[in-house]
Amino acid sequence: MKLKALVLSPESRLNEVCSQACRQRLNGYFDTKWNETGRDYTKEELAGLVEDAEVIITSWGSPPLTPEALEKAVKLRAIGHAAGTVKNLVPRQIFDRGVKVFSAAPRIAQSVGEYCLAALLASLRHLNTFDADLKMGLWREKGLKGRELAGSTVGIISASSTARAFIKLLAPFGVKVLIYDPYLTEEAASRLNAQRATLEEVMSCPIISVHAPKLPATERMLTRELIALIPDGAVFINSSRGSVLDSEAFLEKLQTGRFFAALDVFEKEPLAPEHPLRSLPNVLLTPHIAGASVQGHLSLMEEVVEDIIRSLEAEKTAYEVSENMWEVMA
Amino acid sequence: MKLKALVLSPESRLNEVCSQACRQRLNGYFDTKWNETGRDYTKEELAGLVEDAEVIITSWGSPPLTPEALEKAVKLRAIGHAAGTVKNLVPRQIFDRGVKVFSAAPRIAQSVGEYCLAALLASLRHLNTFDADLKMGLWREKGLKGRELAGSTVGIISASSTARAFIKLLAPFGVKVLIYDPYLTEEAASRLNAQRATLEEVMSCPIISVHAPKLPATERMLTRELIALIPDGAVFINSSRGSVLDSEAFLEKLQTGRFFAALDVFEKEPLAPEHPLRSLPNVLLTPHIAGASVQGHLSLMEEVVEDIIRSLEAEKTAYEVSENMWEVMA
Repeated sequence: MKLKALVLSPESRLNEVCSQACRQRLNGYFDTKWNETGRDYTKEELAGLVEDAEVIITSWGSPPLTPEALEKAVKLRAIGHAAGTVKNLVPRQIFDRGVKVFSAAPRIAQSVGEYCLAALLASLRHLNTFDADLKMGLWREKGLKGRELAGSTVGIISASSTARAFIKLLAPFGVKVLIYDPYLTEEAASRLNAQRATLEEVMSCPIISVHAPKLPATERMLTRELIALIPDGAVFINSSRGSVLDSEAFLEKLQTGRFFAALDVFEKEPLAPEHPLRSLPNVLLTPHIAGASVQGHLSLMEEVVEDIIRSLEAEKTAYEVSENMWEVMA
Repeated sequence: MKLKALVLSPESRLNEVCSQACRQRLNGYFDTKWNETGRDYTKEELAGLVEDAEVIITSWGSPPLTPEALEKAVKLRAIGHAAGTVKNLVPRQIFDRGVKVFSAAPRIAQSVGEYCLAALLASLRHLNTFDADLKMGLWREKGLKGRELAGSTVGIISASSTARAFIKLLAPFGVKVLIYDPYLTEEAASRLNAQRATLEEVMSCPIISVHAPKLPATERMLTRELIALIPDGAVFINSSRGSVLDSEAFLEKLQTGRFFAALDVFEKEPLAPEHPLRSLPNVLLTPHIAGASVQGHLSLMEEVVEDIIRSLEAEKTAYEVSENMWEVMA
């Protein structure tokens, strides 16, 4: 007898996050009920559907599994989220019930890692400025000269999965990596070929990349005083959340032109059309797309489905969310 | 007795290509004559200066060593060019005289390698388009989604030093690398973790990077037929020379919007202010700066000076140009 799986995402969403191979896998391994409504289920509809489900597969737009729905989901063994954070999807009590929770966040982190290296190298070499200048009819009139990454020092804020994906890509550049993360042991840092450092040390690096999860503890953790430490000529990258910065202090410093910033996230999104960040020459701006890529998205459901199957077959998992991660994860 | 060195570059150029450490090294190891005229020497001045020189150090702007000057340079043992190609600097007969020739081209190649990865990742993730859009007040209206590099196939045209520097940086991405280069052996390809391929195979890759040297044999080697092979959605990067392409055929194909191009070089430079390339949305344009970086430039003279010293002390060299490279090098 196959286990019963319930896929909450409608067809339009599946096209983005579920490959053909994944559909076949779900139909082959499970007795799978697909969402044929053409839209996301409502909370009420979900509560009516969970009774038989042994595995639930969700993605962006799926309704949260409320404590009430969870109570009805008496057969539920695993829930897999083909997207990032699960904090708004399942109540923390789900762990008391012994339900296993899986998130594709580590797969999204790979796209973020590539974004960070892209944004860093593009910033160091002024690619966006040169491109805009050439498209306006200029050549080298500004006398800009780029910088190399090789041999530099990269300061990382938080050793999250996005930071790890980024650090992996830095290997051929022979850079020194400093990480601020209160939970990182010296051994774990050295496995990343990195060194632990204070937040002050990291904010004094010529390259700084923010990977802190959105948590009460990280809200505006980059204070005015810390922002003042960013060196002249530095490249500052934020692919985590706008709320980790004192955004007024950051804007003020950025407006001096002292350093360059590649910003994918903002305190309020979408960024206001007239926001002063949009008129600065020393920024590379993107609309919160660091984690978004065609290949990354299309493999999200497959990654969690395969991991759930590994779990059901008592193999080692890679995407499981445990209760002790709850406090420190985004 | 120290050997006599003659540095041709004036102060303004030295600031860019010669570190303080290199000045000290030149003064320490050699009896060095510096150019104090505030400008480049003329050919005539050079001919009057070479008689005593045992080592000559040049860079961009230095006058060529004509056969006549070479005849007078009876003590010359080595010439080191703190820049790229030496073909316009020394006559080929210099090898008959037993003078060793050094070029910093391999150091410049490292900057080109970083440019290629920067341009590739930025192109895959539409960074220049997003940045321009955000600076015009937009957010995600165009529905653009980037692509990942990991797991892709990269086609390389010519296994030159810039290609090798680029390939090194691809290591963490787990890509398949195909190289077209008539001089590359299978063993040499496998040392680069790459496979040999035909020009047709390379031009059919989802990512294509051109590294061919400027030679009569490479003039328009990328014909209309080959350009037609570039797949839909591909990223095509040219950091070598504009002349390797049939530029009319290339422009036509690019104008269809079928693929994306990151172009640092053009058939005629500077690119004409009204050139149609400047108004295409599917290009990332830079003004022939792939090899230019602050750190790269500042180490050029040091690299050739150290290599000349290695040669004088009968150690293994890294920047020496041999006569048998003459035909195939830029």
